[in-house]
Amino acid sequence: MRTFALHEVGPRDGLQVEKQTVPTGTKLAWIESLLSSGVDIVQVGSFVHPEKVPQMADTDELFRRLAARPDTGRGVLSGLVLNEKGLDRALSCGVELVCMGVSASDTHSRKNTGMGTEEATRRILATAKKTVEAGRAVQVSVQSAFGCGFEGPVPEERVLSIVREYLDAGLRRISLADTAGHACPEQVERLFEAIVDLAPDVEPACHFHDTFGLGMANVWAAMRSGVVSFDSSFGGLGGCPFTKVAAGNVATEDLVHGWQRSGIRTDVKLDVLIEVARSVSAFFGRELPGRVHKTGPVPAERKIAEVSA
Amino acid sequence: MRTFALHEVGPRDGLQVEKQTVPTGTKLAWIESLLSSGVDIVQVGSFVHPEKVPQMADTDELFRRLAARPDTGRGVLSGLVLNEKGLDRALSCGVELVCMGVSASDTHSRKNTGMGTEEATRRILATAKKTVEAGRAVQVSVQSAFGCGFEGPVPEERVLSIVREYLDAGLRRISLADTAGHACPEQVERLFEAIVDLAPDVEPACHFHDTFGLGMANVWAAMRSGVVSFDSSFGGLGGCPFTKVAAGNVATEDLVHGWQRSGIRTDVKLDVLIEVARSVSAFFGRELPGRVHKTGPVPAERKIAEVSA
Repeated sequence: MRTFALHEVGPRDGLQVEKQTVPTGTKLAWIESLLSSGVDIVQVGSFVHPEKVPQMADTDELFRRLAARPDTGRGVLSGLVLNEKGLDRALSCGVELVCMGVSASDTHSRKNTGMGTEEATRRILATAKKTVEAGRAVQVSVQSAFGCGFEGPVPEERVLSIVREYLDAGLRRISLADTAGHACPEQVERLFEAIVDLAPDVEPACHFHDTFGLGMANVWAAMRSGVVSFDSSFGGLGGCPFTKVAAGNVATEDLVHGWQRSGIRTDVKLDVLIEVARSVSAFFGRELPGRVHKTGPVPAERKIAEVSA
Repeated sequence: MRTFALHEVGPRDGLQVEKQTVPTGTKLAWIESLLSSGVDIVQVGSFVHPEKVPQMADTDELFRRLAARPDTGRGVLSGLVLNEKGLDRALSCGVELVCMGVSASDTHSRKNTGMGTEEATRRILATAKKTVEAGRAVQVSVQSAFGCGFEGPVPEERVLSIVREYLDAGLRRISLADTAGHACPEQVERLFEAIVDLAPDVEPACHFHDTFGLGMANVWAAMRSGVVSFDSSFGGLGGCPFTKVAAGNVATEDLVHGWQRSGIRTDVKLDVLIEVARSVSAFFGRELPGRVHKTGPVPAERKIAEVSA
């Protein structure tokens, strides 16, 4: 059985768009639970300007407090950096996997970073180089890889040309992010298979938003296409609450539940993931898009009424 | 390109569990819209006792009124029958495709029909025979084919043995229904491939509930496994509102949207399906599980903000 790694991005991608800031202690409790569940990587936060994204202001503090815990058997701690300034912060506080990326959509790239795709790629390659030199693991991503909310379709050649630059730079952990949720399964298979053709030793990762209901179908397409690492978010949190487009990430506990129905990653403690999603839902006082934290898992031999009670 | 048929079951499976009865004129307007969208089959209702399921009390009346409309270019009208009494009603009011089924779970079968699977199968085979003799098309299903809310796992051999009885009786339109939403993609592929192996001329149909978030992934697995007809429900309506298990069907407009992202069934009018789902949502005054009727489709070249406005 191929191994699929879980990369929980809820503490970053899930929380960054929330109006309500989560206290550091609460975040820590969620992250500790996620790590104890057997999730492979937890994205603790992003190194952005604290005034621009106040929800991420305690990222450095979180890493410092997590670094102090015993590391026996725990997962990897990842953090998102947007530029070299962010990298400097990341390097000084114990980030184990440094994530960074470029948008394949010029418009999205400019809105996000003030630079077009070409310039942003040059900058990220320099940042990645510096990260490798510092002895840290790097994951580079192509955002808006399957379509853009501003530009619509994104030519696959644009995506592959960024991937080629990553590969030429010696980078192997490469993620395609469906930032807007436009991906469909055929496209997912085509793009990831093209990437594996470019470099058989690549370690592809995926990041799907469920805007149009295809998130889980895209995950299954990715599983067939050589992807080894899967982003997901507790309760399916994520996306932008300021538009009418409901665009959370694939829910971690739904993904694990689906996998375990197929005998995959039965080592992960689903009950712990369900508890975290319920705790996040209770904190924000609203229903989250994920299913399994509301329904409970498929019953083994019991009545469903008992499980859902 | 293989053709996939759409079987809209919202007017039956979606409405049957709602407390609020929908006026016949409203149902007719929804069904007329669905037919005008290019959906292949619309399940108008079920022939059950009107006191047991008051929401379905006008099924005969609906068929009579729909039969009076010009049939140029319109889809097929299907109806669900549970027994010979229901069949008599169906035959007298213009049902074109008569749907019926048996649960592979003995417990579910007894709760639903008062009979165990074996006896229920004998009855349904007799009912199907009578339907064929009356010159009507028949679709037979195996309910709880992927697991049961009462019994848990359902042995695949139980499902296949019912399918064999259907095939031996000369029936070819055979549906597997994931009544409880327990299916996972691998199981979907395995079971449908087994059925195609039993009879290459079979016309398999599928019916997935999205209880645990795997509905759409299961649809894509079915597309790869020889399935030619796909049940779905407007807005993802369906399931039982009296439990905490949120268990709607796969949403019609989400399914068509996903297909059209892959160039499949671009003949279907997605905008009409979205309008129907919005109308159903407005009627019940609550949010439905489907995504695309809320978000609008993936924008072509426009800004997503315009689309979702």
